[in-house]
Amino acid sequence: MKKYNFNAGPSILPREVIENTAKQILDFNGSGLSLAEISHRAKDFQPVVDEAVALIKELLKVPEGYSVLFLGGGASLEFCMIPYNFLIKKAGYLNTGTWAKKALKEAKLFGEAVEVASSADAGYTFYPKDYECPTDLDYLHITTNNTIYGTEIRKEPEVPVRLIGDMSSDIFSRPIDVAKYDCIYAGAQKNLAMAGVTLIIVKDDCLGKAPRQIPTMLDYRTHVEKGSMFNTPPVVPIYCALETLRWIKAQGGVEEMARRAEARAKVLYDEIDRNKLFRGTVEKDSRSLMNICFVMNDEYKDLEKPFFEYATQRGMVGIKGHRSVGGFRASCYNAMPMEGVEALVKCMQDFEKEH
Amino acid sequence: MKKYNFNAGPSILPREVIENTAKQILDFNGSGLSLAEISHRAKDFQPVVDEAVALIKELLKVPEGYSVLFLGGGASLEFCMIPYNFLIKKAGYLNTGTWAKKALKEAKLFGEAVEVASSADAGYTFYPKDYECPTDLDYLHITTNNTIYGTEIRKEPEVPVRLIGDMSSDIFSRPIDVAKYDCIYAGAQKNLAMAGVTLIIVKDDCLGKAPRQIPTMLDYRTHVEKGSMFNTPPVVPIYCALETLRWIKAQGGVEEMARRAEARAKVLYDEIDRNKLFRGTVEKDSRSLMNICFVMNDEYKDLEKPFFEYATQRGMVGIKGHRSVGGFRASCYNAMPMEGVEALVKCMQDFEKEH
Repeated sequence: MKKYNFNAGPSILPREVIENTAKQILDFNGSGLSLAEISHRAKDFQPVVDEAVALIKELLKVPEGYSVLFLGGGASLEFCMIPYNFLIKKAGYLNTGTWAKKALKEAKLFGEAVEVASSADAGYTFYPKDYECPTDLDYLHITTNNTIYGTEIRKEPEVPVRLIGDMSSDIFSRPIDVAKYDCIYAGAQKNLAMAGVTLIIVKDDCLGKAPRQIPTMLDYRTHVEKGSMFNTPPVVPIYCALETLRWIKAQGGVEEMARRAEARAKVLYDEIDRNKLFRGTVEKDSRSLMNICFVMNDEYKDLEKPFFEYATQRGMVGIKGHRSVGGFRASCYNAMPMEGVEALVKCMQDFEKEH
Repeated sequence: MKKYNFNAGPSILPREVIENTAKQILDFNGSGLSLAEISHRAKDFQPVVDEAVALIKELLKVPEGYSVLFLGGGASLEFCMIPYNFLIKKAGYLNTGTWAKKALKEAKLFGEAVEVASSADAGYTFYPKDYECPTDLDYLHITTNNTIYGTEIRKEPEVPVRLIGDMSSDIFSRPIDVAKYDCIYAGAQKNLAMAGVTLIIVKDDCLGKAPRQIPTMLDYRTHVEKGSMFNTPPVVPIYCALETLRWIKAQGGVEEMARRAEARAKVLYDEIDRNKLFRGTVEKDSRSLMNICFVMNDEYKDLEKPFFEYATQRGMVGIKGHRSVGGFRASCYNAMPMEGVEALVKCMQDFEKEH
C-alpha cells in the first residue's frame, strides 16, 4: 500500500533526493569510495558545499553581504547562538509557541530579552499581529512557522527593527525578503534534508558587535571565515540538502513551492471546514500551510482514535497531533504531493459517511 | 582498481555498514519510508538509539552511573561544553597537538585552565609522560590520539585527578578504563560513523556542579534527561553508528580491534623503519596505531611528490600528510583491512627498488 508521510519532522523528502543520496553513499561520484567516508577536504566535496550555497542564494534571492552556513547541533543550538552573537542591549521575541518560548528562554541568559507579543493565553491559536514593537530592540526574533500549533506568518511583519527568523519548518516553502533579516536559521529536517544539519543565513556586518567573549564554535564569524569548514561538517546531510535544493529549482523554485503549498492547504482546510466531524484549531488567517492541525468536533470526540486507526490503515503516516494540541496534524512539506492530501481528504470523507 | 581509504577523517567504514545504511535510507525496516524521513519519535527509531547505547556500554565496559549520548556539532563543540559543565576552579590540559590546544583555548574563556605538559617545543613528536600533574585540578583533559601528528597514549595516564578524554580518533580501537573519566567524547567520523554525530560518555554525578548558568543545549544534563532526544538528533548518522557497533561486536569487540590495529601498525612501521627512503616522524613509544605519519628521508626529499603520485595510481587514497607535518599519513582505522596496509607497504618497497 502506498504510504503518505505526514510527519512533522524529520519528514518527507522527494524520492529522488533519497535515492540519489543512497546512491552516493554506495559510491560517491564513481570514486569507489562512499560519501560517508570521504574527507570533507576532498576536492570532490567542496563543490557540493559551493553548489548548495549558490542554490540557496539563488532560490531565496539572498542579497550581497550575507553568508550561508551549514552547521551541526540543530536549530535548538541556535537559540543560544543568536543572543551570544546578536544581543547587545535588548532583544524582542514573539512568543508564538513552544520553540519560540525556548528561544526566548536562552536569550534571557545573556541580557534583556522581552516578549513583544504572545498568543500563549489563547493556546497559541493565532499569530500575533497588532502589537506595539519597541524601537530600541537589537532584533525581533520570530518563529515563522509553529510546527506544533500550526500557525504561520507567511510575510515578514512590518516592524521598526531588524528581524531574526527561525524558519526551521517553512523555509523554501515561499519567497522571503532576506534583506529584512540579520539572521535566518533552520534545522534541515523539514524542507531541506535529513536531520543533522542546520542552515544559517547571516548578514556579515552584524557580526562581532556583541559585548562578550564567544566560544569559538558558537561564534558565527568562525564559520563565515572558514566557509562552514572550521570543523568537520555533517557531510551526508549537506549532500542530501544539495539534492533537495536541486529538486526545488527543477520544480520551479520557491514560488512554485508556495503555489503547491497553497493548493494543498486549500484542499485540506476546505475539507476540515466542510466535514461535520472535524474542525481546525487555528484562526483562519494564521493557519499554517505546512502543519495543518485539526481535531474532532466535541460531539464526535470518541471517534478520534477510530479515525486515527482508519487513516493509518489507509497509508496515512504521522498524522497524530502533538501532545500539547491533541487531535491531528497533517504536515504538508514541499515534497508532499497533492495526491497525498487528496488521499487524506478521501479518508475524512469516507469516515464521515460511515458515522 | 581496488582503492584503500587512508583518509584521516571522515574515513573508512566497513563496507557492510555503508551498504546497510544505504539500504535503510531507501526503505527503513520495510516500512516503505526512508530512514532519512522518519520521525525521531517513531517507535522504530527508539530501538536504534537503545541498541547503540547498549552496545557502547557493552563494548567499552562502561560502569554504572554513566550516560551515553549522541549529540550534534562535532567534537569541536565539546571543547566549550567541557569547561561549561566541568570547570569549577581549575582545569589542566595536556598540550599534545592542534586539537588539544584548541580545547585548552576554549577552557580559558571559562576560568583557570593550565597546560600541565606539552610536546609543542618538539613539534608534538612525542606524547608527554614524566610530568608533574597538580592535585587540585577539576580534571585533566587529554587528547588520546593526535590525528595530525600521529601520537597516541594507549593507556590512561597515572595521575592524581579525574580525566576528560577527547577520543575522537581512537575510540573503539582498544579497551579503555572508563571509570577513570568524568567524560569521554568523540566525533564519530573515524571509528564510529559518517560525520554528523558526537558520542559522549559522561559520569552522571559530575554534572550540575559548575558555578555558572549553562545554555540549555550546552548542558549535558539536558541530554542525559532526555536520552539524546531533547531536540531532533542526527538520525542517519546515529543509525550508521549502530551498524558500526554491530560490526565491531561481530568482529570480536574492541579487544580484537586492538589486536588488528597493533598488527597493521607493526607491518607499516616496520617498513617505514626498514625502507631507506622513509622515516617515521614520531618517537617510537608515542607512535599512533591510528594515524601513521612518515616523511621522505632528507636525501630523498625530491621523491615526495613522485611517491605520492605513484601510491595514488596504485589505489592509495588520502595518504598526504597534514600540512603542519608534511610527508605522508596513513590513517588505519578499525575498518582498514591488513590487505590495505600490505598494499601500501608493497608500494613503498616497489618504489624503493625503482630509486
